[in-house]
Amino acid sequence: MNFTTIWERLLPIGRNERSGGYRRYSWTEADMACRAWFARTASSLGLRTDCDRNGNLWAWWGRPGSEQAVVTGSHLDSVPDGGAFDGPLGVVSAFAAVAELRALDFQPARPIAVVAFAEEEGARFGVACLGSRLMTGAIDPATARELRDGDGVSLADAMTAAGRNAALAGPDDELVGQIGALVELHIEQGRALDGLSAPVGIGAGIWPHGRWRLDFTGRADHAGTTRLADRRDAMLAFAATALSARDAAAECASLATFGKVVAEPGAANAICSAVHAWLDARAADEATLDRLVGRIGEAARQAAGRHGVLMEINRESFSPAVSFDPVLRDRMAGVLSAEGSVPPLLPTGAGHDAGVLAARVPAGMLFVRNPTGVSHSPAEHAELADCETGVAALTAVLADLAGR
Amino acid sequence: MNFTTIWERLLPIGRNERSGGYRRYSWTEADMACRAWFARTASSLGLRTDCDRNGNLWAWWGRPGSEQAVVTGSHLDSVPDGGAFDGPLGVVSAFAAVAELRALDFQPARPIAVVAFAEEEGARFGVACLGSRLMTGAIDPATARELRDGDGVSLADAMTAAGRNAALAGPDDELVGQIGALVELHIEQGRALDGLSAPVGIGAGIWPHGRWRLDFTGRADHAGTTRLADRRDAMLAFAATALSARDAAAECASLATFGKVVAEPGAANAICSAVHAWLDARAADEATLDRLVGRIGEAARQAAGRHGVLMEINRESFSPAVSFDPVLRDRMAGVLSAEGSVPPLLPTGAGHDAGVLAARVPAGMLFVRNPTGVSHSPAEHAELADCETGVAALTAVLADLAGR
Repeated sequence: MNFTTIWERLLPIGRNERSGGYRRYSWTEADMACRAWFARTASSLGLRTDCDRNGNLWAWWGRPGSEQAVVTGSHLDSVPDGGAFDGPLGVVSAFAAVAELRALDFQPARPIAVVAFAEEEGARFGVACLGSRLMTGAIDPATARELRDGDGVSLADAMTAAGRNAALAGPDDELVGQIGALVELHIEQGRALDGLSAPVGIGAGIWPHGRWRLDFTGRADHAGTTRLADRRDAMLAFAATALSARDAAAECASLATFGKVVAEPGAANAICSAVHAWLDARAADEATLDRLVGRIGEAARQAAGRHGVLMEINRESFSPAVSFDPVLRDRMAGVLSAEGSVPPLLPTGAGHDAGVLAARVPAGMLFVRNPTGVSHSPAEHAELADCETGVAALTAVLADLAGR
Repeated sequence: MNFTTIWERLLPIGRNERSGGYRRYSWTEADMACRAWFARTASSLGLRTDCDRNGNLWAWWGRPGSEQAVVTGSHLDSVPDGGAFDGPLGVVSAFAAVAELRALDFQPARPIAVVAFAEEEGARFGVACLGSRLMTGAIDPATARELRDGDGVSLADAMTAAGRNAALAGPDDELVGQIGALVELHIEQGRALDGLSAPVGIGAGIWPHGRWRLDFTGRADHAGTTRLADRRDAMLAFAATALSARDAAAECASLATFGKVVAEPGAANAICSAVHAWLDARAADEATLDRLVGRIGEAARQAAGRHGVLMEINRESFSPAVSFDPVLRDRMAGVLSAEGSVPPLLPTGAGHDAGVLAARVPAGMLFVRNPTGVSHSPAEHAELADCETGVAALTAVLADLAGR
């Protein structure tokens, strides 16, 4: 089994034929098929699969707890119509690295585990890195169990329907205590490596970021009879806010995005009584992020005032700035330099399970070049040669971390 | 049976407990319950209920075709979370007027019919006045059968599931030929009558209006890693267009509304690859409407250009200007003036089945005062006394039109 073999067996699962993108939402049929693929792949490599209390999948080489384990992996769930690489590349590369170590007859001095964290994208239940947050105690399990998807199904119900006992979800200190180091390989979601002509980079840290929900409340009226002056149109207040957010992000050299919006009542001939919009905001440091979100909130309040609309803004999730473990980072850089390449060190605006785990265990990341920078899109792509370079880098890192 | 009795039996059907608004979409369970109410009410008034080939409901007093009939009614379907009055007030008032004529032992010289047209709001299949358009041949039946709701269900399938033969849908010249006059009573969807201190008005005509679909196509990218300069964010192009539409409407003394918007992929952490938005535009005359939509289209093209996004605009429906039959209008005004009030003559920006029928038969409208002007909202309201004045006006008009 090599990278391509493992990759191609996962590729058809959860792909939408029309868009060419993936719809692998946690605890759905597509997710269950990804999980079955994980167990089959683990089994064929002689690894023992375990699903932890929070729905994260583990494939163990060696006995957990005998020594602190070297863990590598990523996630299998996707955003709506996401690409093939975001998440799966890390899991497939982890299995391919284990296959390579097996072929080299490597004898690990401590356990190695491949992990696939649940609901990393937050596409179904709205909270990113939900599996790793639950495991590390970064989210209250009672709150998490009551998170609901777009159809009103709770996480607890979705887990129960998938045969899991949601009552057990929550901090798993025993499991966290068994982890000596976590290395997550991920496709880059920008073009920095491409600009540096480097196939692989090492993660420096993660920008602080969060998600805010803005609720604009106007008044539903007939679109054909209500004078402009009598309107309280929530859509117009939202539209002005979306444009202001872009300007504020440019001024703060940061990022602000409205990617999800729900209009009520949602009829073409009714003025919106409400618009719910989700702001994704990220910046190089927390002070800048505060300034950015403050400006957008103020712009939203002003726009709401102009249109006779009420506005509320609430933070739905927040991830503080992460600096990856400098010892692990330097050790990975040393290994890869010895292999012949000096990998660049990259910050990223994207959240990752490794960023969540970094609060509890030494964690690091490897990035694989993305020639277009496109991500969260069916057009997301990495060249096979770069993926193979990534597997070789990960193999060398695992051999070093798990070696004698 | 009086107005209140008939009204209160309809009131609970299809009401959403949370919003207090109505979700009576055609051919759904709520609609079927409304239809059952129609048949029960008709039966208790000694009227014979018939469902025509296009799903419009008729309750006949007298034999259709014996003489040209006097028809009155409106529709029972609603916009999402619509109010209780828009549509139902006309049907309930029609039954109440028939009850009044029965109580007066009125002997009609020609048939009287109460009608409830199907899918007037277009809330399920996207085309307003679908039932009356099909009946009068204003829409191709093959096209109509293939209209789909948000879940991809076609009109044909929805009708079949409700026990109707969708293959028979289409122009019904025999039925249209049996109509001598149509009078639709409707709640006003503005505040003109309130300003004139008049409980009831007569429709002058309907502004030309239509619905346009704007498709903005950008590129899905990761919200946390894609530089502002690299983005092709469809949401920003839409937002700029929504604001421009408001400005253009003000300049043209007309109306433009975006009440429905769908963002793709629709994840909070993905830049929008596409935004589909529906423009509702109305103006006093067709030249002004053309100018308004032209300006909005041009603004959308410019916004799309600024954000590296493609834009397409397509007309989904159009209703030309309607002037109600002047003979019928004058006759109604004469009857009501003889009753003691001189009703004002009102133009309206809202489409109605009476506007569709006006192309084929003498048609007119009565409006009942709406003290707040609010419509297409759970807050829509008319005072009981005004509703009763409306019933009295309709009773007098029917007695005149159907009398000897």
